[in-house]
Amino acid sequence: MGGRDSLVGGVDLGGTKIQTVVLKNHQVVGSSRVETPQTGADAVLAAIAGSVRTSLEVAGDSLSDLAAIGVGTPGTIDESNGSVSNSPNVPGFDAGPVPLAEELSNALGGADVRVDNDVRVAVRGEWKRGAGRLYRDLLGVFVGTGVGGGLVLDGNLRLGRGAAGEIGHTIVKDGGRHCGCGKEGHLESYAGRARIEATARKWQAEGRKTRLFQIMEKKGRDRLTSGVIAEALTEHDQVAIELIDEAVWALGIALANAANLLDLEAVIIGGGLGDRLGKPFVDRVAEAAGPRLHVPERPPTFLTTELGDLSGAVGAAVLAGG
Amino acid sequence: MGGRDSLVGGVDLGGTKIQTVVLKNHQVVGSSRVETPQTGADAVLAAIAGSVRTSLEVAGDSLSDLAAIGVGTPGTIDESNGSVSNSPNVPGFDAGPVPLAEELSNALGGADVRVDNDVRVAVRGEWKRGAGRLYRDLLGVFVGTGVGGGLVLDGNLRLGRGAAGEIGHTIVKDGGRHCGCGKEGHLESYAGRARIEATARKWQAEGRKTRLFQIMEKKGRDRLTSGVIAEALTEHDQVAIELIDEAVWALGIALANAANLLDLEAVIIGGGLGDRLGKPFVDRVAEAAGPRLHVPERPPTFLTTELGDLSGAVGAAVLAGG
Repeated sequence: MGGRDSLVGGVDLGGTKIQTVVLKNHQVVGSSRVETPQTGADAVLAAIAGSVRTSLEVAGDSLSDLAAIGVGTPGTIDESNGSVSNSPNVPGFDAGPVPLAEELSNALGGADVRVDNDVRVAVRGEWKRGAGRLYRDLLGVFVGTGVGGGLVLDGNLRLGRGAAGEIGHTIVKDGGRHCGCGKEGHLESYAGRARIEATARKWQAEGRKTRLFQIMEKKGRDRLTSGVIAEALTEHDQVAIELIDEAVWALGIALANAANLLDLEAVIIGGGLGDRLGKPFVDRVAEAAGPRLHVPERPPTFLTTELGDLSGAVGAAVLAGG
Repeated sequence: MGGRDSLVGGVDLGGTKIQTVVLKNHQVVGSSRVETPQTGADAVLAAIAGSVRTSLEVAGDSLSDLAAIGVGTPGTIDESNGSVSNSPNVPGFDAGPVPLAEELSNALGGADVRVDNDVRVAVRGEWKRGAGRLYRDLLGVFVGTGVGGGLVLDGNLRLGRGAAGEIGHTIVKDGGRHCGCGKEGHLESYAGRARIEATARKWQAEGRKTRLFQIMEKKGRDRLTSGVIAEALTEHDQVAIELIDEAVWALGIALANAANLLDLEAVIIGGGLGDRLGKPFVDRVAEAAGPRLHVPERPPTFLTTELGDLSGAVGAAVLAGG
């Protein structure tokens, strides 16, 4: 798709932000990030188109050079027409289908638009342009508000019947801590930021002392962001330390199980919390998984992301031929 | 390999028995089963060759019609020459390489010999000629002395770096019951026959009453075979019931995790214990996995094997072109 010098846009659509990049010859030449409007689908579509235009301006290029756009989005995607439904965190996308591909194409000079799942485009980004370039078999794990995942097996992104990659809902402790999905004892119950926050609030209500919420207020946040958790760790906050210990433990179990079943070459750990805590965190997860591997002398390589919070947008552009 | 009417042999080599089949036009036309000699590699090789000859006689055919032979074996296989090492349960195969392919070819008129892992050939058998024929994505789980597994993904047997499929060493309860591999809390710790027997002995030593060992003696066995366990269940032996309840629970967790990660179309449950307990057992496992699936409205189909204890031998023959 597109000639040698044509531009390809990539969009990572989330409930709080829209991250856009523009690629030329496989390189990021422009990027833009805006907050996701909270007023409905039309505003979200306009914000995406505006962010793509800004990225083009940053790159010093114009809309007429744009060959195609890829979009990564949460929710259910109708592959036949690139429409999106059931995406509860994106305003206006929570119910019936939004014709995302059609509207974006109209707004952006008729460019081809490809749409895929947000986690899968992030895996694609790291696989094709990031930490996973050397591998044909890898698991990407995105530790953020929840825990998402995606698999590359024998050089292909694994789809299954459309829902493959749900490492976040691996049972690490049957009957254990509540998960955001309504079930119990999942990897996400212990490693997802939202469940870490809920557990910290519960422990505090039970009388445990923690600096987490003071740090949150000091930073002007209304939730325990990755930055808040990271600062609490540097202050040796015991609650934060225990919660991250449990996240590491849960990741060690879930990733060892996946590695044992699939004999993976590599595991890439990213997402808001994964990227923020970085290599020391990933190294601890590798240490937790190690003794649980069936062939411990040949572990998968545990890696941080290379693209960080651009994994999704770059992967979306790759999907569209960038 | 082989013309339309040529014969292909398949061998399932185990520590206690050697099962052989001969296929013509993809159909089993002869089979033979012998005990595995306990006196060394030469005796084992001779027994395999003898069993293939018997299968040919049963089929009314002769060695000159045999185009190729496939062998499934435990241990480490050198794919370059079909030799086998590190197979502790097969006499003489426990240490340095035995030139299995070469010796068998010499003993059987120069037929081509292909060698693969015992669990993988069983998965291949069920996938190509058994319960898995309709599927491109399946997990085969063989619940026997241990618990082995193999994956077919997008219509290909998953190898990974050679060790894919180790569902038996999925952690279902971190720090739980000892596993045969030396670690703890694995699926095999709860569902493998050897660990079920060890736990029954421990519980009996602790004062719990069970009919399991009386049934074993009555049947003239020196271990808790699948038949002994099945009979204890029909006698409502409480220890047997609890142990199988735990096996079902552990299978439910491990298979739900695998299904969530891979979005599998089908799970086939076989092996000595799986085949013996049959459909009621497989249905119970499906019920245990169901509530743990991330997309419960679209579960994988849970199936018994169709080939039973011929899965491995038939799959070995398929490997060799049969």
